[in-house]
Amino acid sequence: MFYCRVVESVGEDVDEVTEGDTVIPIFLSDCEECVDCKSKKSNLCSKFPFKVSPWMPRYETSRFTDLKGEVLYHFLSVSSFTEYTVVDIAHITKIDSSIPPNRACLLSCGVSTGFGAAWRTANVETGSTVAIFGLGSIGLAVAEGARLCGATKIIGVDVNPNKFEIGKKFGVTDFVNAGDCENKSVSQMVNEITGGGADYCFECVGLPSLVQEAYACCRKGWGKAIVLGVANPGSQVSLSSFDVLHSGKTLTGSLFGGLKAKTDIPILIKRYLDKVI
Amino acid sequence: MFYCRVVESVGEDVDEVTEGDTVIPIFLSDCEECVDCKSKKSNLCSKFPFKVSPWMPRYETSRFTDLKGEVLYHFLSVSSFTEYTVVDIAHITKIDSSIPPNRACLLSCGVSTGFGAAWRTANVETGSTVAIFGLGSIGLAVAEGARLCGATKIIGVDVNPNKFEIGKKFGVTDFVNAGDCENKSVSQMVNEITGGGADYCFECVGLPSLVQEAYACCRKGWGKAIVLGVANPGSQVSLSSFDVLHSGKTLTGSLFGGLKAKTDIPILIKRYLDKVI
Repeated sequence: MFYCRVVESVGEDVDEVTEGDTVIPIFLSDCEECVDCKSKKSNLCSKFPFKVSPWMPRYETSRFTDLKGEVLYHFLSVSSFTEYTVVDIAHITKIDSSIPPNRACLLSCGVSTGFGAAWRTANVETGSTVAIFGLGSIGLAVAEGARLCGATKIIGVDVNPNKFEIGKKFGVTDFVNAGDCENKSVSQMVNEITGGGADYCFECVGLPSLVQEAYACCRKGWGKAIVLGVANPGSQVSLSSFDVLHSGKTLTGSLFGGLKAKTDIPILIKRYLDKVI
Repeated sequence: MFYCRVVESVGEDVDEVTEGDTVIPIFLSDCEECVDCKSKKSNLCSKFPFKVSPWMPRYETSRFTDLKGEVLYHFLSVSSFTEYTVVDIAHITKIDSSIPPNRACLLSCGVSTGFGAAWRTANVETGSTVAIFGLGSIGLAVAEGARLCGATKIIGVDVNPNKFEIGKKFGVTDFVNAGDCENKSVSQMVNEITGGGADYCFECVGLPSLVQEAYACCRKGWGKAIVLGVANPGSQVSLSSFDVLHSGKTLTGSLFGGLKAKTDIPILIKRYLDKVI
């Protein structure tokens, strides 16, 4: 999904992009017409809902075929692993062509998801504390987003202690080695570092047990656990009913970081070109 | 817990109330000094945390004894089922004595919890849709709170259809009989009535299965499920990991409706005296 493309041709009624434009195909659509796309509260387009492998949605037909003319079905609506693809305009974001493709492509999924989760979904506040489970590219992007939102303590949690050095470049201030917590749980460690739990805890791995641990790391009263990791199909997140009622904590998810592709990605690109991120 | 009291005497250093004042003892403390009580984001006092049956917390001693001088332990910090009780000032809210005691007492727990859940925890917006699971006193108070916040559709869910008539007095506009849904689930019914799910869904019964159903009733993209019901000890709320990540929904709890006793209860009392609620 990490791709940056150049438009080869456009279909009828498409005036948003033209041949030669630099674009990013994005799995989450932004039709700009439905109630969700028009709302500030949602980035889940209801005209072309998220599907892993659907038919080309608009008009219920496809202009995407192989050399023999056989219809090709889309993977995540964009099929960007191919050399050429045919994508609905709702899944295309035009970008400033001066950004190098090997940077722009990172904004088509992972980096946007992480950055957006801190920026748009959590809306991390100045002076707040953050815990991040999993310092892969998404987790590091969460750190970068939290840093720019003004978080003063950003705790990375990973089983690989080398990730701390990488994480420091993106704003990680503290590290918890989940594989070596000195007979304590990760949540005990985070609670000690933060003096009672982090304001925002991000799960970037995809394990229900880590979602529970992220929830346990949340500050009583207002802490928010935000799920970014993709779990195995059919898995369940289980929380204590007592905690849900009595803790004042919140559980939510962040698909594509809560970003609206056509408005938010250009903002991220500009910030990159301005050397802010 | 539904009690309204008159102060008989006060201890040293207490100047917030005096003999003869009308007060409500409230199980959730409001010390007005700790970071939680000073924050707008929390109503969970960290100086005297919620406990079902603790020792009198301040100074780790008790001034509450029986006729033989035996120390009495508190139930929910206020022990308001007794004729006389001794309560920490952090658990006392002074109120306007012109409100009848049989109305004021309702604000010490259930009605405040329901009203506050719509008003403070959910912050229900004008024009939004609401579903309420369980039309007991708490659920009816949620309806009243949602109505005053401007909700245009308030769906009551109960197994007793007579509750609809009672609910109408508090703003309930639609009713789903959970015991007779014509081969549909409650969430299917609510999704049909609202055209895709309610903005805010309140669980007022205390069953993990109803929390799941309330979550399923939430509008994709921004719906919030708010738990008020007290579940059996040890019970768990289980949600699909896929839904948590992909639905944009939020799960949270509301203890005492998210209200701060000393600031919010007097507001509710004034609204009652002004015949607003």
